[in-house]
Amino acid sequence: MRFSAPTADQQAVLTHVVGIEELAQTERFAAADAGTVQAILEGAAQFAEGEFWPLNKSGDEQGVTLKDGEVTTPDGFKQAYQAFVEGGWMSLAAPASAGGMQMPLALASALMENLNAANIAFALCPMLSLGAVEALEAYGNEELNERYLGKIVSGEWPATMNLTEPHAGSDVGALTTKATPNDDGSWMIDGQKIFITWGEHDLADNIIHLVLARTPDAPAGTRGISLFLVPKILPDGSRNDLACVGLEEKAGIHASPTCVMRYGEKGQCKGWMVGDLHGGMRAMFVMMNNARINVGLQGVGLAEVATQRAVAYALDRKQGARGAIAEYPDVRRMLLRMRALTMASRALCYYAFACLDRRAAGDEEAGYRGEVLTPMAKAWGTDVGVEVTDLGVQVHGGMGYIEETGAIQHWRDSRIAPIYEGTNGIQAADLVGRKLGLDGGQAFDGLIADIRANAQDERLHALCDMVEQTAIALRSAEADHKMAGSYPFLTMCSVLVGGWLLERLARADDATDATKAASAFFNASIVPEAAGLTAAANAGAELLYSVEVEALA
Amino acid sequence: MRFSAPTADQQAVLTHVVGIEELAQTERFAAADAGTVQAILEGAAQFAEGEFWPLNKSGDEQGVTLKDGEVTTPDGFKQAYQAFVEGGWMSLAAPASAGGMQMPLALASALMENLNAANIAFALCPMLSLGAVEALEAYGNEELNERYLGKIVSGEWPATMNLTEPHAGSDVGALTTKATPNDDGSWMIDGQKIFITWGEHDLADNIIHLVLARTPDAPAGTRGISLFLVPKILPDGSRNDLACVGLEEKAGIHASPTCVMRYGEKGQCKGWMVGDLHGGMRAMFVMMNNARINVGLQGVGLAEVATQRAVAYALDRKQGARGAIAEYPDVRRMLLRMRALTMASRALCYYAFACLDRRAAGDEEAGYRGEVLTPMAKAWGTDVGVEVTDLGVQVHGGMGYIEETGAIQHWRDSRIAPIYEGTNGIQAADLVGRKLGLDGGQAFDGLIADIRANAQDERLHALCDMVEQTAIALRSAEADHKMAGSYPFLTMCSVLVGGWLLERLARADDATDATKAASAFFNASIVPEAAGLTAAANAGAELLYSVEVEALA
Repeated sequence: MRFSAPTADQQAVLTHVVGIEELAQTERFAAADAGTVQAILEGAAQFAEGEFWPLNKSGDEQGVTLKDGEVTTPDGFKQAYQAFVEGGWMSLAAPASAGGMQMPLALASALMENLNAANIAFALCPMLSLGAVEALEAYGNEELNERYLGKIVSGEWPATMNLTEPHAGSDVGALTTKATPNDDGSWMIDGQKIFITWGEHDLADNIIHLVLARTPDAPAGTRGISLFLVPKILPDGSRNDLACVGLEEKAGIHASPTCVMRYGEKGQCKGWMVGDLHGGMRAMFVMMNNARINVGLQGVGLAEVATQRAVAYALDRKQGARGAIAEYPDVRRMLLRMRALTMASRALCYYAFACLDRRAAGDEEAGYRGEVLTPMAKAWGTDVGVEVTDLGVQVHGGMGYIEETGAIQHWRDSRIAPIYEGTNGIQAADLVGRKLGLDGGQAFDGLIADIRANAQDERLHALCDMVEQTAIALRSAEADHKMAGSYPFLTMCSVLVGGWLLERLARADDATDATKAASAFFNASIVPEAAGLTAAANAGAELLYSVEVEALA
Repeated sequence: MRFSAPTADQQAVLTHVVGIEELAQTERFAAADAGTVQAILEGAAQFAEGEFWPLNKSGDEQGVTLKDGEVTTPDGFKQAYQAFVEGGWMSLAAPASAGGMQMPLALASALMENLNAANIAFALCPMLSLGAVEALEAYGNEELNERYLGKIVSGEWPATMNLTEPHAGSDVGALTTKATPNDDGSWMIDGQKIFITWGEHDLADNIIHLVLARTPDAPAGTRGISLFLVPKILPDGSRNDLACVGLEEKAGIHASPTCVMRYGEKGQCKGWMVGDLHGGMRAMFVMMNNARINVGLQGVGLAEVATQRAVAYALDRKQGARGAIAEYPDVRRMLLRMRALTMASRALCYYAFACLDRRAAGDEEAGYRGEVLTPMAKAWGTDVGVEVTDLGVQVHGGMGYIEETGAIQHWRDSRIAPIYEGTNGIQAADLVGRKLGLDGGQAFDGLIADIRANAQDERLHALCDMVEQTAIALRSAEADHKMAGSYPFLTMCSVLVGGWLLERLARADDATDATKAASAFFNASIVPEAAGLTAAANAGAELLYSVEVEALA
């Protein structure tokens, strides 16, 4: 099967949802003129199709191996990564001050989506570097950034994010990795981190680890955490005291090394603080925020490639009197559902980034909206990824379950995304716990008001009412009730925003038939389904605590 | 993790949903007295926990291998299968005339559920034999049954179902395997079959293949198909001309050999017709009907074990201020949802079998109801399996994606069930295309009337209204509109029946707290969600054909 990047659909989102032309009129994004945008979209398509996609299946089959602390990536990965760096793709959205092209994140979305669609395991490597660029840009001191930022921005030295420890996952504050000050301003790092994506590999000469750790006498919990930059190779060219001591065996993303990292086995692991003492969580959120939307784009990318594959199969596979199975209503239902969910989640993720772009260009209000949209983009984008790849398997029938076909790889690969970068449950908690009240509640309410003013379909309006009423109820509810309804509420909100943006795409003069059909299907089927979540979102926590958990075993 | 068969919950379903005591008063099931039922439930639990479960993970890891036409099963499988045969488990529901214990299928459900929970890959072997027993019992001639039925019933010679060919999947009528008559009443079989579960293995001395094939000058399509019994070892002790020529690599059920079977490579593959010339489809439906509910029970079994695993993990895993993650509302929501879906789908599947049991005991009306329930049991049961195992992965967070943990195996294993034995889309088509009109529509309407008379929760009544109105609309709709709404309609119906039966369980005097909470959650959250499918079920086909499928790529 040939993956074909959805350039025209991406262009439509950039034009009608992101407002890329408007963004290009700001000083910050002046370089994003129409010609450049077009060239980048086409180049990103070509690169993903030509370099990453051919390695997707072989990478899954071959996987990564660990021997004597060295991680070997699948055949061809090194060359493809080299091409990625040489093409300048890593620096697309990085600020000019750091050597980047300073393009909008919303435009970089198209690149990331394509890389994810073409080879999600591979795309994780640059994705994590992006977070590091943000963190260093915001908090790194001049000396540190002088030494590392340019190399990370160029892609020469990929970066990693080290948060999780065996007993500190969603509860980051429980981490125990220690940082002890040296005389020269550097620190000694000592601890073990798990689930470190691309923590060790053979793609580059150096790897820059950003590591959360606890300084001596730091306060307990998240308030006592600081962030450190820990390079694999020290400035003097010697090897730092850090190593990959294990690789996880996972259900998917086989070509992405998920490492157990040991820092300071010999007490000689050197790092430098990024930002303030005990400022680790702030820096981490900077790292994670964009990463969250990018994980949403993993769902979108996988949904896109799964849809393309399913459509191709449904047109090719003949069964029964109608010929191609694409001619049967229930198969059409699945294909149109796949396309509708893919388009709507794409619009949502790009839009979330566009709001952050507007903040970077000076519009603080848009920035708040971006923050409201972030948990939706992450959670719903990745839920869509799992659902659409699942439907893709189903369209293939018996062939879908066979590895040779390829459809099931997308499904296996998709399942990590609702988990990492903050589980989707954490996203839902973020939405009701923090984002509903952001900027005095105006960030959320302004979004709803815009949808009400702009959406046309009556079913969208009905859902809008339910979302608004639920939001009012959740705001005044006790914490447990809020959390009890958080997940269904997040889905309702996401479907509302996705449906609204998809409708906007369908109303454009140059809307394709597929977009129109997708929007019509979305409003006819998916929006009423989301409305069906209202009861669950308002159900409260009492029932959840009416039984001992032990009794559920 | 220790799997513990849900004996008490199964007993409750047998008592309050199946009406096992009533069944035991019929002549057919006179042997199913309370003491026997209890002993069987306990024995089935012990067997699944002690023999199948310990091989679940190792079987997944080791998988099956093919060498020189011989399939080697994972370590321990041969001994466990021997124990299965010696325990007499295979013959539980087979008629006494065939050497069986003639227990109700509804009771055998508990055994099958446990086997599926403990080791779905392994459980597929006996499951397919069950279908063969039904087919031979109904259509095999005396001589053939004399030779084979007893051995299949005992489990000594497992049986297989051979339907699919590369170009004949859901469209069975397209198959091209040929059967040519010999002088002695036997036939020569020539063709290739794919996706043959447990088509070849080392568990037994002989394997009995039931093969659909086309006789010379047979009419095209399904009307020209006949069924043949094709033993691996011929009555004279010589090897028949058939072989496993390939094994599929799948995303799950690794310990179950999925074979490409070649019949008659040397023109010497001998078989015997089962039933009438061109009566293959009828026989196949007999084989498949019970298999469909048993596949639903695969979903139930995997949901059960995934729920147990998730509850154990959520109680053990500490994160944040509340201690165990089970104390967080959204985790509770997931756990209660898992338990509720598991209980409701169990009740539905057992109930479907109970209706078929009543038919066997002389109640034809109940038999029609069983036929109405069959597509729901298969499709919704397997959808529940995928959803609940997916939630189980999510409860585990990052550990969920790691193979070592075990949660992801259930998810991988679960994904085949919505596909085989008739895809869930085929089930939905069966529901609206055939079952809605069965017995002049009385079978379906009678079920709805019973629910209306018996259910108490107002949300169940609201859903009942929507199902009824949708049924009226679909009955009078054109075929394409019917099919367009079939899948959401099937889900609505299944949730209605499942919710009704679960409520019945919760109302029993001896109902557990977990059952009460599960039913309350089901009515509060899952029933309103299903009501949200009403629009999709009534949306019609027009929209689906408003766009060229090619444009969705």
